[in-house]
Amino acid sequence: MDGIVFTTDVRKELHEELKPYGEENVFVLTDKNTCKYCLPLLELQMMLPGHVIVLDPGESYKSLESVAKIWTVLSEKGAKRSSVLVNVGGGLVTDIGGFAASCFKRGIRCINVPTTLLAQVDASVGGKTGINFNGLKNEIGTFSVPRQVIIDARFLKTLPRRQILSGFAEMLKHGLLSGKEHFSKILALGTGIITGENFLGLLEESVAVKARIVEEDPTEKGVRKALNFGHTIGHALESVAIKEKMEVYHGDAVAMGMIAELWLSVMKKGFDRALYERVRAFILNLYPVDFPVVSLEQLYELMLHDKKNEKSGVNFTLLEGPGYFTIDNYCSRSEILTALKTLPFFD
Amino acid sequence: MDGIVFTTDVRKELHEELKPYGEENVFVLTDKNTCKYCLPLLELQMMLPGHVIVLDPGESYKSLESVAKIWTVLSEKGAKRSSVLVNVGGGLVTDIGGFAASCFKRGIRCINVPTTLLAQVDASVGGKTGINFNGLKNEIGTFSVPRQVIIDARFLKTLPRRQILSGFAEMLKHGLLSGKEHFSKILALGTGIITGENFLGLLEESVAVKARIVEEDPTEKGVRKALNFGHTIGHALESVAIKEKMEVYHGDAVAMGMIAELWLSVMKKGFDRALYERVRAFILNLYPVDFPVVSLEQLYELMLHDKKNEKSGVNFTLLEGPGYFTIDNYCSRSEILTALKTLPFFD
Repeated sequence: MDGIVFTTDVRKELHEELKPYGEENVFVLTDKNTCKYCLPLLELQMMLPGHVIVLDPGESYKSLESVAKIWTVLSEKGAKRSSVLVNVGGGLVTDIGGFAASCFKRGIRCINVPTTLLAQVDASVGGKTGINFNGLKNEIGTFSVPRQVIIDARFLKTLPRRQILSGFAEMLKHGLLSGKEHFSKILALGTGIITGENFLGLLEESVAVKARIVEEDPTEKGVRKALNFGHTIGHALESVAIKEKMEVYHGDAVAMGMIAELWLSVMKKGFDRALYERVRAFILNLYPVDFPVVSLEQLYELMLHDKKNEKSGVNFTLLEGPGYFTIDNYCSRSEILTALKTLPFFD
Repeated sequence: MDGIVFTTDVRKELHEELKPYGEENVFVLTDKNTCKYCLPLLELQMMLPGHVIVLDPGESYKSLESVAKIWTVLSEKGAKRSSVLVNVGGGLVTDIGGFAASCFKRGIRCINVPTTLLAQVDASVGGKTGINFNGLKNEIGTFSVPRQVIIDARFLKTLPRRQILSGFAEMLKHGLLSGKEHFSKILALGTGIITGENFLGLLEESVAVKARIVEEDPTEKGVRKALNFGHTIGHALESVAIKEKMEVYHGDAVAMGMIAELWLSVMKKGFDRALYERVRAFILNLYPVDFPVVSLEQLYELMLHDKKNEKSGVNFTLLEGPGYFTIDNYCSRSEILTALKTLPFFD
């Protein structure tokens, strides 16, 4: 895992990494919440005035306007190609900051300091950046690998439970993609999740699952699509939630997406039905099921828009079993509607 | 020169290239002038309604707003990752279109059909994309190589002379970078330039000079900076012109930049003074010298902002002689002011 550091002293790692840059070349992007709870841990007193850019929190700020704001600061404060943007925050911050950095003067370096479980295990690793546009998630973005990702699990201790769950959905996904052994350890975690004594080891294993897949296929032409498991339906649910201004977390949507896409796997790939039932119960026990009321047809329409589709129809990653995935499965409208009906809010 | 085609039948080449895409996947970006004069040559009758995006012409439209307009059309018309954007026009269109394509759904393919000499010889080749931002040229952009560049010199015949001159400045630059033999042929062209019987061969040679340098260093970490010859001062002049809303062409600014940067080369690298005088006279004979009145200090400030500078100071490519260039020369403020005084409008 080149460029990914696990540490219990993020301050030391970050200061070490920033040493070669002059203070005039260091910029920090964060959001209001992170600024309050996490930034003090970094002890960035040496930052020049105006070099800390603070976004408002929330998915609606994952916008072109936020990116323009970042570009304006970088430009006005004289950032150079040799400058660095340190993204401190959740996936929203690392996604926006990564995108802004990848286009500023045709690309400056960035360092990610993910402070949520979701960002640690997913968003900050793998080089996908993006913003929402025209009501669609990550419609605009780039592939751009951060120079360094610094992961310190101490940030997790102050996170609300729903935030932990949001990241944990990706760990579940990595578990399903990697094989029975790792997946069993994940299912064995108590409902406290990060209080489990195996948690730190599992976090590192989980990031390694993603890093391995991304390394094989950085720009998602093939095997990387596996990481999309649960996300085709998950993203559609999330898009609806954005439109309805409901507070649905990424992981909530992905967890539901995984239930439905596992059911497609049962129907089309012979995924073990008993294990499906176990995973479904596990997810429904952990995750809120308070989703926007929306018609199956509307969800299907949104899926047709998913950027993973290369031809008409909707493209899924499906599983034959834990660790055995197949990409580029196009499912029919009726198969998809059947799968959606496994979700409790379509009962 | 992979991916660059010289043809006298652009229609045929383009239709061939577009065959594998369904019509729903083909989008064209152009501007109002190109739409009128050049698009008919392409016979794109099969385009779906709304799939031709027409920008207003002019540097002030090389903006984030134009990019947002393109993204909105692509998104609303359901463009997919497997869609293609065909950029038909000058450098403005290929720069904006290239940028828009490189970020839409994290990157879709584009094909460039450059219709001006400047775009044929420079902008559409080499994978630099960009828009102006915060009053600075190409402040935002990406490195992203088009899938195909189709060059048909027939487009040049309808171009106004100033447009020809604008592209020709880059050919002069390629001449200086490539060596005495090619450069002599360029200096030997009559003032009609494209009417010279060697012109087509020289155009292809000129593109090859750039393609060779870019291939060695696609993201401008080293040797590609050579292509910046004339542009450090040229860009500063152009930025002033944008602010003053004066109609200065890119090539006009670069031609002046080359005079001043050749003088730096004489002072610091022993470039032959007689040849310098010859090039200066050649340029002043061809190019308009109607530049905005601006203080030397203002220009110097703008250069300090140039994205090519990696440390403080201003970074130049300088020449020991035709074909012998050195990159990363930091010149002092007083050297730069002296060089600027070689320009007629600072007399």
